[in-house]
Amino acid sequence: MSKGITSKEEDYSQWYNDIVLKADLAEHSSVRGCMVIKPYGYSIWEKMQAVLDQKFKDTGHSNAYFPLFIPKSYFSKEASHVDGFATECAVVTHYRLKNDGNGNIIVDEDAKLEEELIVRPTSETIIWNTYRGWIESYRDLPILVNQWANVVRWEMRTRLFLRTAEFLWQEGHTAHATSQEAIEETERMLDVYADFAENWMGLPVVKGKKTPTERFAGALDTYCIEALMQDGKALQAGTSHFLGQNFAKAFDVKFTSKEGKLEHVWATSWGVSTRLIGALIMAHSDDSGLVLPPKLAPIQVVIVPVYKDAEDLQNTRNYVDTLIVELKKMGVSVKFDDRESQRPGFKFAEYELKGVPIRLAIGARDMQNGTVELARRDTKEKFTVPQEGLANYIENLLEEIQNNIYKKASDYRAAHITEANSYEEFKQLLDGKAGFISAHWDGTAETEKRIKDETKATIRCIPLDNKLEDGFCILTGKPSIQRVLFARAY
Amino acid sequence: MSKGITSKEEDYSQWYNDIVLKADLAEHSSVRGCMVIKPYGYSIWEKMQAVLDQKFKDTGHSNAYFPLFIPKSYFSKEASHVDGFATECAVVTHYRLKNDGNGNIIVDEDAKLEEELIVRPTSETIIWNTYRGWIESYRDLPILVNQWANVVRWEMRTRLFLRTAEFLWQEGHTAHATSQEAIEETERMLDVYADFAENWMGLPVVKGKKTPTERFAGALDTYCIEALMQDGKALQAGTSHFLGQNFAKAFDVKFTSKEGKLEHVWATSWGVSTRLIGALIMAHSDDSGLVLPPKLAPIQVVIVPVYKDAEDLQNTRNYVDTLIVELKKMGVSVKFDDRESQRPGFKFAEYELKGVPIRLAIGARDMQNGTVELARRDTKEKFTVPQEGLANYIENLLEEIQNNIYKKASDYRAAHITEANSYEEFKQLLDGKAGFISAHWDGTAETEKRIKDETKATIRCIPLDNKLEDGFCILTGKPSIQRVLFARAY
Repeated sequence: MSKGITSKEEDYSQWYNDIVLKADLAEHSSVRGCMVIKPYGYSIWEKMQAVLDQKFKDTGHSNAYFPLFIPKSYFSKEASHVDGFATECAVVTHYRLKNDGNGNIIVDEDAKLEEELIVRPTSETIIWNTYRGWIESYRDLPILVNQWANVVRWEMRTRLFLRTAEFLWQEGHTAHATSQEAIEETERMLDVYADFAENWMGLPVVKGKKTPTERFAGALDTYCIEALMQDGKALQAGTSHFLGQNFAKAFDVKFTSKEGKLEHVWATSWGVSTRLIGALIMAHSDDSGLVLPPKLAPIQVVIVPVYKDAEDLQNTRNYVDTLIVELKKMGVSVKFDDRESQRPGFKFAEYELKGVPIRLAIGARDMQNGTVELARRDTKEKFTVPQEGLANYIENLLEEIQNNIYKKASDYRAAHITEANSYEEFKQLLDGKAGFISAHWDGTAETEKRIKDETKATIRCIPLDNKLEDGFCILTGKPSIQRVLFARAY
Repeated sequence: MSKGITSKEEDYSQWYNDIVLKADLAEHSSVRGCMVIKPYGYSIWEKMQAVLDQKFKDTGHSNAYFPLFIPKSYFSKEASHVDGFATECAVVTHYRLKNDGNGNIIVDEDAKLEEELIVRPTSETIIWNTYRGWIESYRDLPILVNQWANVVRWEMRTRLFLRTAEFLWQEGHTAHATSQEAIEETERMLDVYADFAENWMGLPVVKGKKTPTERFAGALDTYCIEALMQDGKALQAGTSHFLGQNFAKAFDVKFTSKEGKLEHVWATSWGVSTRLIGALIMAHSDDSGLVLPPKLAPIQVVIVPVYKDAEDLQNTRNYVDTLIVELKKMGVSVKFDDRESQRPGFKFAEYELKGVPIRLAIGARDMQNGTVELARRDTKEKFTVPQEGLANYIENLLEEIQNNIYKKASDYRAAHITEANSYEEFKQLLDGKAGFISAHWDGTAETEKRIKDETKATIRCIPLDNKLEDGFCILTGKPSIQRVLFARAY
């Protein structure tokens, strides 16, 4: 433990909060449910954005921007959509403040909107209202658009990154001429998310479909990637929705097909959010603080000089000059921390807390010997390594650390998918923090709800690669054709 | 004229709107005053963001994110700030909708906020309320933070990009230990903006200070860059504010100085917005559509095959293969438009409209001769150039186009700064669309207001490099020590 981080074993939830706050990632703002993402936390988000944005562009998408506000009536146009979002939204009713004459600023009742505006919780309605003007014929399709934006859902119980009233995300909204094309797009973007989670975040995920109960409000099918946190709870890390023609019908978006027929357009939407930062923290970190996979670490290598006097410090600067140039050329982000206001020990703890993958410490003896002291954040091992060839050594080590972090999470996940064959066993596993529980379910919403009410476990997904297997529902004993993945979840 | 763009001479305002709409940059949304930024328009914004973001980072700034909502009471804490923004803001009063039992969705009166939230028109108040927790001693300073965000100002008369209720921008908010440091920061960021405008946007700007009347609400000094549009109207392209200790005092943000004294922190804020896209359009475009400086053009080179049959088309593909690879290596963005659904003439007009700097057309004869037909968007000249060495030729030409666009705007600007020595002359110049008018002013807000009321011209700025010169106010005849720049403005 450093800087008073609660241990994971003692109180997982407090441990998580301690890391978020003490690694300077984010903090609660004075506005209910809204967070401030601090520079270090935001720089992780920027790293994520850059990778995802490139992946979206590589798969043919462009970015655009749609209004923050959605007229109230738009919500009602898609019946299940309004049910899903109406109970947790910020409503703008007025457009002016005024001085009440006694020096108080009050809402100007003369400036009441005719129709209230909702701060977007998601943008399907405003976007499909816009697409109506963009689409006439099959030549205008597909439309492959993504938006980076803030959204607001008035959550009553909030947790930094995991669940906040306002959060940042991206939302893709695509329009297609055929159902098949839209489904392919839905699956393609799920694969993009899974690839990002596994190969950048070091986070193994299960790809699957949600049950009807857990679907996005307005979707025909919701695909998801589900990850496992170190406390055995699951976290939905991204979703991709096949919306069918629901929004096209609600907003009257039709196109003339190649055959000259007027048809409704097919839609998808897909998104990931700053919640991923929460997942990143919970999946890899330890009691010393954050552990970041190198590919998403804002600082990949930090160099801390251990010196007695100004001459020592200057020697260290010279000693690392070439290394820094070489690393930067390789695209490795490196920081030389020569702050004189803090001692090396303080800096070691700080970078440990902040999850910097590799730390180099350099003292007079290292310089005599032509070596550096290298510490790995993931394993906490220390080595003395030669200065010669150090840049290449570091480049390889960063890759090794990336792989090791993934492997660790992957081993953990493998050890935490357990089959349960009775409701008793199911409940015991849950209480034992067993992670994902693979169990038979009779396919009804009623059973799903009863299990949720009784155990707080939800069906995370029906895995895409699920094998069919005859069995009996753990709750009702009714016949079932496949196991589904249950877990308690964030 | 192409695709029915109104000519600039005929109706400048309609010409501008036509370009925005027909070049697919943006459109009005169904939400009052809010725009949809379409993919092509947004890709220009992304180019701008990338350059500016790097400049901010190169000058030591980090990005962060603060809440969209600001409690109403925060506004009242800085007196002039609330006066400046209260009359044009979106107010959130409720956090839930409900079904009224008759199938209508209405605002749930039980979910009324205790304190109304304002959708941020700018973030000084919420950020300084946050900084209070970040700053204890001089060691915590400076704080150099920037935010990329959407903001809302309830404008009654809106124009795409130039003035919309919601717009995208960046806002820098810095905290310093001394007044001098804060002023240096204010000036540094003004220089960053001027550099960006001139060397990326190809837009010459005057750097200056605003008069007290035109200052940002809450600033001690507002610096600005002012540009000139082709109709002789000025446009404020960016502002940088020295806020003194106003917000530190309003939000009680103090630090312990090196000398152990408790002092209020000094502040700056600075921003540019999607308005810059409006400036870019109006500064360079012509009656055929958009003209983009190569450094901000999403597509710098477009290649259009002119072919009879599939074999022709395939030959053209082979013919340009190497060129495309070479250009991409040089960092030139190139598009090969081999859509078979549109004829070459249609494509020529489309890319002209969209301001692509260089267009190559390639037909059978070109391939025989080892040439291509090249068209420059800025001058509309056409050349036949050899295929050999084409990538280098293009690289140089892009630079030449960038310089030419700047030079053209610069010559125009030079011809549109005129001295006026009487009020009559001043008014004649204004009506003659003379651009900036340099004139003596007695330094009072009363005179400034009268001139504005009578002529719609405002003092754009007091140029930073202004020479002192004795004279007499054009309106009142009172003594004046310098000329200031007047103009009608966007």
